[in-house]
Amino acid sequence: MRIGVIGTSRCSKKIAKIAYEVGKEIAKRKAVLICGGLGGVMEKAARGAKKNKGLTIGILPGFSSSDANPYIDIPIVTGMDHGRNIIVVRSCDAIIAIGGREGTLSEIAFALKLRIPLIGIESWKIEGVIRARDAKDAVKKAFQALKKEKKIVRCT
Amino acid sequence: MRIGVIGTSRCSKKIAKIAYEVGKEIAKRKAVLICGGLGGVMEKAARGAKKNKGLTIGILPGFSSSDANPYIDIPIVTGMDHGRNIIVVRSCDAIIAIGGREGTLSEIAFALKLRIPLIGIESWKIEGVIRARDAKDAVKKAFQALKKEKKIVRCT
Amino acid sequence: MRIGVIGTSRCSKKIAKIAYEVGKEIAKRKAVLICGGLGGVMEKAARGAKKNKGLTIGILPGFSSSDANPYIDIPIVTGMDHGRNIIVVRSCDAIIAIGGREGTLSEIAFALKLRIPLIGIESWKIEGVIRARDAKDAVKKAFQALKKEKKIVRCT
Amino acid sequence: MRIGVIGTSRCSKKIAKIAYEVGKEIAKRKAVLICGGLGGVMEKAARGAKKNKGLTIGILPGFSSSDANPYIDIPIVTGMDHGRNIIVVRSCDAIIAIGGREGTLSEIAFALKLRIPLIGIESWKIEGVIRARDAKDAVKKAFQALKKEKKIVRCT
Repeated sequence: MRIGVIGTSRCSKKIAKIAYEVGKEIAKRKAVLICGGLGGVMEKAARGAKKNKGLTIGILPGFSSSDANPYIDIPIVTGMDHGRNIIVVRSCDAIIAIGGREGTLSEIAFALKLRIPLIGIESWKIEGVIRARDAKDAVKKAFQALKKEKKIVRCT
Repeated sequence: MRIGVIGTSRCSKKIAKIAYEVGKEIAKRKAVLICGGLGGVMEKAARGAKKNKGLTIGILPGFSSSDANPYIDIPIVTGMDHGRNIIVVRSCDAIIAIGGREGTLSEIAFALKLRIPLIGIESWKIEGVIRARDAKDAVKKAFQALKKEKKIVRCT
Repeated sequence: MRIGVIGTSRCSKKIAKIAYEVGKEIAKRKAVLICGGLGGVMEKAARGAKKNKGLTIGILPGFSSSDANPYIDIPIVTGMDHGRNIIVVRSCDAIIAIGGREGTLSEIAFALKLRIPLIGIESWKIEGVIRARDAKDAVKKAFQALKKEKKIVRCT
Repeated sequence: MRIGVIGTSRCSKKIAKIAYEVGKEIAKRKAVLICGGLGGVMEKAARGAKKNKGLTIGILPGFSSSDANPYIDIPIVTGMDHGRNIIVVRSCDAIIAIGGREGTLSEIAFALKLRIPLIGIESWKIEGVIRARDAKDAVKKAFQALKKEKKIVRCT
């Protein structure tokens, strides 16, 4: 299973701690962590996963694998800037949004559109977002909500 | 000037009428209309522009120019499905959201992120969205807000 | 009809002259010219079209419409770097390659893959490329070869 | 290190055998195998890697992770059809082309453009492609040529 973690590239200590715990829980459940590969929430979550023997994928916006934070095992280099957000979303079976601003909102919107379960902690309050109270609760809810049927939603 | 119009591919009569009026006003002001090229809000706005001698661009999600609605002069064929949303946003100097669901929300999020002025009519109430009361008011506000400085916001 | 012109962003005087003539012939036949929007072959072809009352579209790799050469009417801003090459190709009914290096080769390959007619002048000698001896011959052959059936080739 | 393997989704027995051997050699050298995730060369190479305890990434063109062949550990779901080819290329430190038609040619062109070492076995004879005589020779040459300097080539 592949669980995405989305959020800003700079974040408060409180959000960083949640991101670390989310990454840790994902790794403990043997799921692969997918994120945007940069700093902040992405880095903290990847660190939490790596410290617990997880596997981490970073879908990068830029032109070089060296943009990835030090806890990314596999950098995917898109060269598409924010255009890569939809690839992060499409590649996950469930997604956890931690905090987040406009970039995160674009990913939440894509997840809702594509019917990929989206759990939010201290994040955007949009209809369809499953709210969690802490890291453990979020990962638990992500696993409960895992996209089961492979119904594909196309742009029409 | 290039003004984007975003919204769902199916819409109520009320939203359709607003979209037509927005397209008309854009054409009367000699701006180019950019949209996603499909039905609903996109088609009504393009029709309003064409009936008033405007030029219309449709940035399509699929694989064929024949997906475009009949009021699109120039179809751009991306083959990227919803991934084309960010190209719609990047190509505009200002954007008007009319109604809209998750797809529209992803475009609103990108516009806010990239600091492209975003006017909303009966649309998502997100901080940063400039609200308008009707079609004329929206187009007027779009022209007032036109992206002036060419400050580029990169994904970091 | 939409005719693409592809080639390098820097070119010899000889290639520049051919590109100008190709743009001129496209405009005289009332077709829309689509290109990558930058300098060299793209700029010369767009200039040839504009001097003959044509309409020009530039599908840009970067983040700003101001990257477009001065002869582009409609800049499409992709933010996808070379990733935009396939959008140039998909959006055309026929394409003319003038000279060209690796970037052009990627576009030729996509055109062949997607069964979009590809005319080459002093360009890559790849099976499937229709060779032309000069600008007039190239545009004539492009119109003769215009993609007729809208058969869509998907990646399988 | 990440080594890409590119080629067609249907292939001869001879090419299939080479692809399997290439995948095997990549895994034995502890490199990650990246490919387009579908059948033919991509599947045979992934199978060769998996049978030798390698890790495999499939960068898919479609909308579902279930499009991946059975030997892909991590599917990346782009929804970009052939537009994903450049992401395959950008994500590798070196690439091995085995046979191949137009889709492969687009990837070879991008690799040459982006200065990513490209080794060819029974593939396109384009200037800049390093030719190998068999699977072992190809993987050896890929490791010798590994992109050392992280010079980034931008579209200009």
